[in-house]
Amino acid sequence: LENRMKVVRFVAQEVEKDGKIPHFTAGAIAEVIREAQRRAGVRGQLSLRFRELGGLIRAGGDIAREKGHGLVTKADIRKGRKMARSLEQQVADEMIERRNKYSLVVNSGALVGVVNGLAVMQGDETLSEMSGIVARVAAEVTPAFSREEGKIIATGKLGEIAKESVQNVSAIVKKITGKDISDYDLHIQFLDTYGVEGDSASISIATAVISALENVPVDMSVAMTGSLSVRGEVLPVGGVSAKIEAAAKSGLKKVIIPKNNLKDVLLEEAFEGKVEIIPVSNIKDVLFHALVGDTKKDSLVHRLSKFVPETIRMPKREPRIA
Amino acid sequence: LENRMKVVRFVAQEVEKDGKIPHFTAGAIAEVIREAQRRAGVRGQLSLRFRELGGLIRAGGDIAREKGHGLVTKADIRKGRKMARSLEQQVADEMIERRNKYSLVVNSGALVGVVNGLAVMQGDETLSEMSGIVARVAAEVTPAFSREEGKIIATGKLGEIAKESVQNVSAIVKKITGKDISDYDLHIQFLDTYGVEGDSASISIATAVISALENVPVDMSVAMTGSLSVRGEVLPVGGVSAKIEAAAKSGLKKVIIPKNNLKDVLLEEAFEGKVEIIPVSNIKDVLFHALVGDTKKDSLVHRLSKFVPETIRMPKREPRIA
Amino acid sequence: LENRMKVVRFVAQEVEKDGKIPHFTAGAIAEVIREAQRRAGVRGQLSLRFRELGGLIRAGGDIAREKGHGLVTKADIRKGRKMARSLEQQVADEMIERRNKYSLVVNSGALVGVVNGLAVMQGDETLSEMSGIVARVAAEVTPAFSREEGKIIATGKLGEIAKESVQNVSAIVKKITGKDISDYDLHIQFLDTYGVEGDSASISIATAVISALENVPVDMSVAMTGSLSVRGEVLPVGGVSAKIEAAAKSGLKKVIIPKNNLKDVLLEEAFEGKVEIIPVSNIKDVLFHALVGDTKKDSLVHRLSKFVPETIRMPKREPRIA
Amino acid sequence: LENRMKVVRFVAQEVEKDGKIPHFTAGAIAEVIREAQRRAGVRGQLSLRFRELGGLIRAGGDIAREKGHGLVTKADIRKGRKMARSLEQQVADEMIERRNKYSLVVNSGALVGVVNGLAVMQGDETLSEMSGIVARVAAEVTPAFSREEGKIIATGKLGEIAKESVQNVSAIVKKITGKDISDYDLHIQFLDTYGVEGDSASISIATAVISALENVPVDMSVAMTGSLSVRGEVLPVGGVSAKIEAAAKSGLKKVIIPKNNLKDVLLEEAFEGKVEIIPVSNIKDVLFHALVGDTKKDSLVHRLSKFVPETIRMPKREPRIA
Amino acid sequence: LENRMKVVRFVAQEVEKDGKIPHFTAGAIAEVIREAQRRAGVRGQLSLRFRELGGLIRAGGDIAREKGHGLVTKADIRKGRKMARSLEQQVADEMIERRNKYSLVVNSGALVGVVNGLAVMQGDETLSEMSGIVARVAAEVTPAFSREEGKIIATGKLGEIAKESVQNVSAIVKKITGKDISDYDLHIQFLDTYGVEGDSASISIATAVISALENVPVDMSVAMTGSLSVRGEVLPVGGVSAKIEAAAKSGLKKVIIPKNNLKDVLLEEAFEGKVEIIPVSNIKDVLFHALVGDTKKDSLVHRLSKFVPETIRMPKREPRIA
Amino acid sequence: LENRMKVVRFVAQEVEKDGKIPHFTAGAIAEVIREAQRRAGVRGQLSLRFRELGGLIRAGGDIAREKGHGLVTKADIRKGRKMARSLEQQVADEMIERRNKYSLVVNSGALVGVVNGLAVMQGDETLSEMSGIVARVAAEVTPAFSREEGKIIATGKLGEIAKESVQNVSAIVKKITGKDISDYDLHIQFLDTYGVEGDSASISIATAVISALENVPVDMSVAMTGSLSVRGEVLPVGGVSAKIEAAAKSGLKKVIIPKNNLKDVLLEEAFEGKVEIIPVSNIKDVLFHALVGDTKKDSLVHRLSKFVPETIRMPKREPRIA
Repeated sequence: LENRMKVVRFVAQEVEKDGKIPHFTAGAIAEVIREAQRRAGVRGQLSLRFRELGGLIRAGGDIAREKGHGLVTKADIRKGRKMARSLEQQVADEMIERRNKYSLVVNSGALVGVVNGLAVMQGDETLSEMSGIVARVAAEVTPAFSREEGKIIATGKLGEIAKESVQNVSAIVKKITGKDISDYDLHIQFLDTYGVEGDSASISIATAVISALENVPVDMSVAMTGSLSVRGEVLPVGGVSAKIEAAAKSGLKKVIIPKNNLKDVLLEEAFEGKVEIIPVSNIKDVLFHALVGDTKKDSLVHRLSKFVPETIRMPKREPRIA
Repeated sequence: LENRMKVVRFVAQEVEKDGKIPHFTAGAIAEVIREAQRRAGVRGQLSLRFRELGGLIRAGGDIAREKGHGLVTKADIRKGRKMARSLEQQVADEMIERRNKYSLVVNSGALVGVVNGLAVMQGDETLSEMSGIVARVAAEVTPAFSREEGKIIATGKLGEIAKESVQNVSAIVKKITGKDISDYDLHIQFLDTYGVEGDSASISIATAVISALENVPVDMSVAMTGSLSVRGEVLPVGGVSAKIEAAAKSGLKKVIIPKNNLKDVLLEEAFEGKVEIIPVSNIKDVLFHALVGDTKKDSLVHRLSKFVPETIRMPKREPRIA
Repeated sequence: LENRMKVVRFVAQEVEKDGKIPHFTAGAIAEVIREAQRRAGVRGQLSLRFRELGGLIRAGGDIAREKGHGLVTKADIRKGRKMARSLEQQVADEMIERRNKYSLVVNSGALVGVVNGLAVMQGDETLSEMSGIVARVAAEVTPAFSREEGKIIATGKLGEIAKESVQNVSAIVKKITGKDISDYDLHIQFLDTYGVEGDSASISIATAVISALENVPVDMSVAMTGSLSVRGEVLPVGGVSAKIEAAAKSGLKKVIIPKNNLKDVLLEEAFEGKVEIIPVSNIKDVLFHALVGDTKKDSLVHRLSKFVPETIRMPKREPRIA
Repeated sequence: LENRMKVVRFVAQEVEKDGKIPHFTAGAIAEVIREAQRRAGVRGQLSLRFRELGGLIRAGGDIAREKGHGLVTKADIRKGRKMARSLEQQVADEMIERRNKYSLVVNSGALVGVVNGLAVMQGDETLSEMSGIVARVAAEVTPAFSREEGKIIATGKLGEIAKESVQNVSAIVKKITGKDISDYDLHIQFLDTYGVEGDSASISIATAVISALENVPVDMSVAMTGSLSVRGEVLPVGGVSAKIEAAAKSGLKKVIIPKNNLKDVLLEEAFEGKVEIIPVSNIKDVLFHALVGDTKKDSLVHRLSKFVPETIRMPKREPRIA
Repeated sequence: LENRMKVVRFVAQEVEKDGKIPHFTAGAIAEVIREAQRRAGVRGQLSLRFRELGGLIRAGGDIAREKGHGLVTKADIRKGRKMARSLEQQVADEMIERRNKYSLVVNSGALVGVVNGLAVMQGDETLSEMSGIVARVAAEVTPAFSREEGKIIATGKLGEIAKESVQNVSAIVKKITGKDISDYDLHIQFLDTYGVEGDSASISIATAVISALENVPVDMSVAMTGSLSVRGEVLPVGGVSAKIEAAAKSGLKKVIIPKNNLKDVLLEEAFEGKVEIIPVSNIKDVLFHALVGDTKKDSLVHRLSKFVPETIRMPKREPRIA
Repeated sequence: LENRMKVVRFVAQEVEKDGKIPHFTAGAIAEVIREAQRRAGVRGQLSLRFRELGGLIRAGGDIAREKGHGLVTKADIRKGRKMARSLEQQVADEMIERRNKYSLVVNSGALVGVVNGLAVMQGDETLSEMSGIVARVAAEVTPAFSREEGKIIATGKLGEIAKESVQNVSAIVKKITGKDISDYDLHIQFLDTYGVEGDSASISIATAVISALENVPVDMSVAMTGSLSVRGEVLPVGGVSAKIEAAAKSGLKKVIIPKNNLKDVLLEEAFEGKVEIIPVSNIKDVLFHALVGDTKKDSLVHRLSKFVPETIRMPKREPRIA
C-alpha cells in the first residue's frame, strides 16, 4: 500500500516536472502501478525502479498530448508502454520477430521427445524489461557409444547453470531407469537457441528425456517453465508473465509453471484467459499434465511416485522476528 | 508493400542528394528492391540496411553516368552490384577464387563417405553480403582405438556450435547402428576448410557418415545444406541463395535445402534453372535424394523410418495476438 | 579488558570530534562493545575496526539527537545499527529479503535427503558485516551412469574450496558404503543458491547424502553449519552468530554448530533463547541430532563409530612460550 | 598474359621513379616475372604483391649499377634476389643454416619408421618469401600402456591443425590394422623441430607409422609432402617449390608431392633436374614409391587397395558461369 | 669470517650514519650476526641483506637510547627484533595468532591418519623474514569410487609443486600396498590451511597416509618437515628454524627434520632445548620415529626396508676446482 | 678463418676506441677467439656477438692496466672472463653456489633408479653465457594405481618439451617391457630442480627408468646429457661444454654426450683431462656405459639390440648446391 502511494506521488512529481504532460486519470495511474508490479515479478511488491517508470509516464503523457486529451488515460499508458521500451529491448524484440518467422513451434497434436519450453530475452539485463520466447527442446535416447557408461550430451551452448540443470535432471532420469542407464546416451538439444542460461528449462528437459526414454508422446499444446531439484521438486523461476504471454502468442493452450510462481502471474489484458495456467510442485505433476496416453503414461507416473514423495510439505512460516 | 515504398523513396532521396546520378527506371528500382530482399534472407521482408543499399544505388548511378545513360537501368544496377561490394567481401571473394583453383569438388559419379557440403564466407560479419562455397565433407568409419568405446573425431578447427552439430548428428547414427557403435571410431573431416562455424553442415556430416558406415555411395552431383535435430528433423539455415549459386558455379546439379528455407531462395538470374532445388524436412528425405543404389539404400531408408516419424507435423499458426 | 578501554576512549573521541552528538550512557557504550565483539567473531577479542564502529557511534548519536535525547541510549545504538549498515550490505539484505519470498525452507516434519544448511552473505568482503541465510541442500543417490565407477555431481556453481569440501565429505560416505559405492552416483544440489564458496556446508552435505543413501529422514526443524575433516571431525567455521539468527528468523528450532565455535556465539537479544544450540565434534554427533527414526538411525550411528573415534582428544594447550 | 603486362609496366615505373637504375633486358624482366610466379605458388597467376617485387627490382638495379652495367641483366636480378630478402627471412635462413649443421637427414639406404618430411620456414608470414627444410619424422609402435585402448602420442609441439592431421592419419592406420589397434600405442616424433603447424606432413606421418607397424623399411633417398584425407586421398599443400629445393640441397633423390600441386612447381634453375618429382593422388601411391622390399610391401599396398579406391575420379569442371 | 667482518663494519657505519645510536657491545654485535645467520638459513654464510639488518640495528639502537643505555646491548637487539619486523610480516603474525585460537593441534597421545606438519608464512616473499606454523595433515583410506582404479584426492588448494609432492609420496605408498592399491581412494587433507605451496609437507603426507592405510597410530607429540624422493630419500627444505620454534610454541616435544638441514638449525634462545630434533635421511627413519606401537609398526618399517636402501650413501665431495 | 680475422680486427678497434687499454698479445687474442668459439657452441664458427666480446676485451684490458702490464696477456683475459659476466649470470651462478650446498650429487658407487643428469642455467637467455649444473633424476617403478593402465608421473614442473621428452622415452620403455607395462606406474622425479625445460635430459630419464624397472644399478661416477628419438637414437643438445665442466666440478669421472655434439666440446683448460667424454649414438650405448653389473646388464643391452639397429647409418652429405 505504502509503495502504491509512492508511485502515485511519483506520477504527480513527473507531471509537474515535465510541465507539459496533462494530469493522469485514476485508470492511468492504476495502469502505471500494474506495470510496476509486472516488472517486480512479485505481486504486491512494487518496483521502485523509478527511472524506468518515468519513461513510461512521459511516453503515455506524450501520446495523450499528441491526441489532444485533456487527461492521460489508461489507453494512453498502454500505447506508451511500447514507445517507452528501451532501444536494446526493441532490438531484442525484432530478433524475436525474425526468429518466429522460422519458428519450430508445433502447437497441436503430440510428439515423442519434444517439449515447448519457455524462455525470456532481455535487451538490457540491468532493466526489468523482458520478452518471452518459446524455446523448443528435443531429446533422443540412443545406444551408448561406450560399453562402460552412458553419457549426457546437451547442445545449445549451455551456460554453467544450464549445464548444472541438465545434471540435476539426470538424477531423476537415473532413478526411473535404474541400472540400465549405462546402456544409453541421452541427447538433449535446444532447437535454434544458442547461449542458454539459467535452469528454468529443467522441467522441459526432464519431460523431453523421459518422453523419449519411455516412448510416451508429449501434448504439443502445452508449454512449460520451471526449475527442478534432484529430488523431483519444482522450484520457482523468473519472468513467468512474459513467458506465458509468449506461449499464448504461439497458440499454445496450457502453460505449466511452478506453484511458487503463481503469485507472480500478471498478464497483459490481451492475454488473460487465453491460456490455462497449471501450477505444479513436483515432476510427477508435470508429467501428468504434459504426457499423452493411457497405460504407459499411468505406469510411468505411478513409478515416479516411488521417488517423489506424494506431498512435499510446504513451509509453515513462523511469524518473522524483527 | 510498405517496405517497398520505403526503398522507392530512399532511391529518390539518394538520387536527389547526390545531384549527379540520373533518375532510375522502374526496372532499376525493382532490381534494388530485389537485392534488398536477397540480403534480408526472407522473401517479403525488405532489408532496411539503407547504408548498404545506398552504396548499390550510387554504384549503379555512376555506371549509368559513365556510359552516358539518361536513366539508370536494371543492367546498370546489376553491374553496380559488383562494384558496391565491400573491400572485405572482395578480399573474401579473391580467397574463394584461389581456393577454387585447388578445388576438390567432384561433381559427377558417386563416392562413398564424401558429400558436397555448402557454406558461406563473409568478409564483414556486420554486413549482409556473403559468398557461397562448396565445402567437401569426408567421413570414414574405422575400428575403434579403444576396446570400450567408439569415438567421434572431427577435424577442420570446428567452432563450438559446429562441434555440437557433430554431437547431434551422432544421435541419428547411434540409432541406426545400435549397440555395435562401440566398435567404431567415426572420422569426419572438412576438406581444405578450417575454422568451421555453425551447424548448417549437419546434414552433410550425417550423410557422409551414414554412407561410410553402410558403404552406400553418395551422388556427387548433389550438394546440400541444413541443420539437423537429434530426432532427425531438418532445420532452417542462413544464406541459402548464395550457397545454391556456389553449387551451380561448381557444376553441381541438385541442391538439398531445408523445407523452411524454400521461401528464402532468390537466385541471381544467371543461376535460375541451373540447379534443381530439393526441399526436405527430415534426414530420411536427405538420404533418399543423396544416396545411390537400390537394395542397400532402400533398406537403410526403411530402417530410418523407425526413428524418424513419417510426417513431422508442421505448426498450424494461430493468428497472432497484437 | 584493555581493548574495552580502547572502545570507551574511542567513543569519547568520536563524541568530542563530532561536537553535536550527546554523551553515551553506560548501556550505550556496552552495546557498542557488544557489537565490536560480534564482529570480531571471537568472544573476548574486540574488533579494532574503528572505522566501522565510528559509523555505528555516529548513527546512534544522530538518532538520539533527532529524538531530543540528552544522552545516547542502548536503544539508540540498536536502532543505529541498521542505519550504519554499509550500502553494499543493505543491497545484500534486500536480496535476502527477495530470496526469502521464494524461500524453500521447510521448518517442521522430516524429509529424506534434504538439510537446512546455513550460510552468510557479505555485501563488502573487506568489512566485518554479514547477514545469514538458510541455504537448503538436497541430495539424491541414483544408480551410476557408468558401470565402472560412481560419481559425485554437485551443483550450485561451487567455488574451489566448496568443491574440495564435497571431496572431503565423500571420504566419510565411502567408509559407510564400502565397495558398493561404485554402483551409485551421488547428486548434491544447493537449492536456489549459486556461487557457493567455502567449506562450512560440509556437515550439511554429509547429512543430506547419508540420509538419501540410507533412506533415513532428516529433522527439518534443525539447521546446521560446520566443516568436516576426512576422518569425521567437525571443524570450526565463520559467522556462526549471523547464521544462528537466520535460522531463528526462519522458524527453525535447533542449530548444530562446531564445538570450537561455541565461544563465538553472541546473538542479538531478540534471538536469544529462540533456538537450541547443539555443539558437536564429529559427524556421528551431527547425525545423532539431525536424523529421525529409531532402528535405522541407531544402526547407522553405530556403524559410524567404527570410523570416527568415540572421543577425538582435544588439544591440551601447553602454556605459550614468549 | 594481362598480369605479365602489369609486371612489365611496374618494372618500367620503378625504373623511372628511381631515376638511377638502368633499363631492364628482356631476360631480366622475365626473371622478375618468374619470381612473381614462384611467390604466387600457382603457375599462371602472377603475384601482385608489388611491394615485394619493388624490392627485387631495386636490388637487381643496384647490382647492375655497381657493376657499371648499361642494362640490368637476368644475372643481376638473380643476385638481387638474395639481397632483397627481408631481414626476417635472412634470420630464418641463418637458423636453417645452423640447424643443418646438426642435421639428422639420412639420404641413402632404408630405415624402418623414419621419413624425410619437408616443411617451410617463413621469417614474416605476411610476405610470400619462404625457405624449405627437411623435417625428419620418426614413428614407433609399442605395446599399449592401457589394456583398454591404444593411444597416439605425437611430439614436436604440434599446432592445432597438425594435431588434427595426426587424427586424420590414424583413420588410415586403423583401417589397416583392424581391431588389433587397441594393443598398440603409436608414437610420432618430429625430430629437432618444434612448433609444427599445418597438415602438410600428413603423408610423412602416415608413411612412418605404417612402416613401423608393418616393419617395412622406407627408402631414405625419398622426401615427401602432402596432406591426407581420412579416406586416403592426397590433398594439395603450399610451398612445394621451396620444399623440393630443400630436398635437393640435402642430397635427396626423389620428392613425392600431391598431384594437384604439380602445376605449382617452379624450381630455381640450379635445382632443375636434380630430383625426380613424383605426383601422387592417394596413400597407396605414396607407399608404393616410398617403401622398400618385395613381398611385405606388395602385400601391404594390396591391402590398402581395399580401403582406397583405385581411381579417385578427379572433378570434371563445368565451364564457369559468370 | 670475512662476512662477519662485513657485518661488524656495517654496524659501525650505521651507528655513525644515524648519529644518535650509541655504540654496540660485542654481545649486541654477536646478536646481529646471529640474526643474519638465521636469515641466511645456512650456518656459516651470512645474509648480506644489509637493508634488512639496517632495520634491526636502528631498532635496537632506538630501544637502547630510549632506555638511556650508554651502549646497545644484546637485550636491546632482541627487543628490537620484534619492532624491526616488516609491516607485512606483522600482519602475517597476527593471522597466525588468530589461527591459533582455533588451533587443531593435538600435542599428546596418538591418532591414526593425523600428522602435525610444519610450514612457514611469509608476509613479504622478497624478505628473509618468516614465521612458522603447525599445519595439521589428515589422511583417510577408503574403498575406491571406481572399480578400475584408486585415486588420490588432496584438498587445501594445493599449488603445483605441492600437487607434485603428493604424486611423489604415492610412489612410496604404492610400493607398500602393491597391487591392492587399486581398491583404495587416498584422501589427504590440509586442515584449515588453504593455498599450500611447496613440497616440504611430503613426509607429513606420507606418514599420515601410511598410518591410515596400516591403521598404526602416529605419536602426536611429534612434528615434522621434509621433502621426499620417489625412492624414499628425505630431501632438505627451507625455514627449519622457524618451523621448529612453531612446534615448540604448540607444546610439541620432537621435530623430525631432514639430515641435510641439521646445519641450518639456529633457534632463538627461548626455544633451545625445548624440543628434541631428530634428523632423518629416509622415510623408514621417519616412520620409525613417528609411529606408535610394536608388532604392526615393526612389520611396516621392516617391509619398507625392501624399497628404501638401508644406507643411502651420501656424496663424498671432491675438492672443488677453481 | 675469415671470422677469426674479424675478431682480431674487432679487438684492435676496441683497443683504439677505448684509448686506455694496452695492446693484446697473440695469446690474449687467441683466448678471446677461444671464448668466442665456446659461445658459438660449434667449433669453427665464431660467435659474432661482438657486444658480448667487447665486454670481455675491456675487462681483460682493465685488469692488465691495473696490474701495470704493458700488454694484455692470456692470463688477463682469463681473469676478465669472470668480471665480464653479466649481472644476470652472476645471480644465476650465486644460485648454483647455494644449490650446491644442499647438493644431492652422489659421485661414486652405484644406485638403482638414480642418474646424474646435466643441465644449464642461463641468467639472460638472449646472451650466450651459461653455467652447467648436475641435475639428479630419480625414477621408481610401482604397481599401477589403475587396473587398466600404467601411467607416467613426472615431477619437477616440466615444460612442454620436457613433458614430450618423457613421452618419447616411454616408447623405448614400452618396447622393453612389452605388454606388462600396463601393470606399472612409472615415477620420474627431477630432484630439487623445478621448471625443467627442453629435452636434453631424455637419456637420463630413460636410464633411470630402465635401471629401476630392471633393478640394475647405475654407475654414480657417470653424468650424461642427450635427447632421444622414439626409435632409440641419441640426438644432439646444447651447452655440452658447460655441462661437462659442471660434472667435473662435482667430482664425476665420465660424461656421456651425443656423438653429434663431440665437435662442440671446448673445455676451459682447468677441466681438460679431468673427465672421460663418452660419445654415444643410441640408447643401447648409453646403458652399456652407465649401468653396472654383469648378467642382468648384458641381458638388458642384448634385448635392446632388437629394437635399436646396431648401426644407425649417419648421413653421407652430398656437396651442397649453391
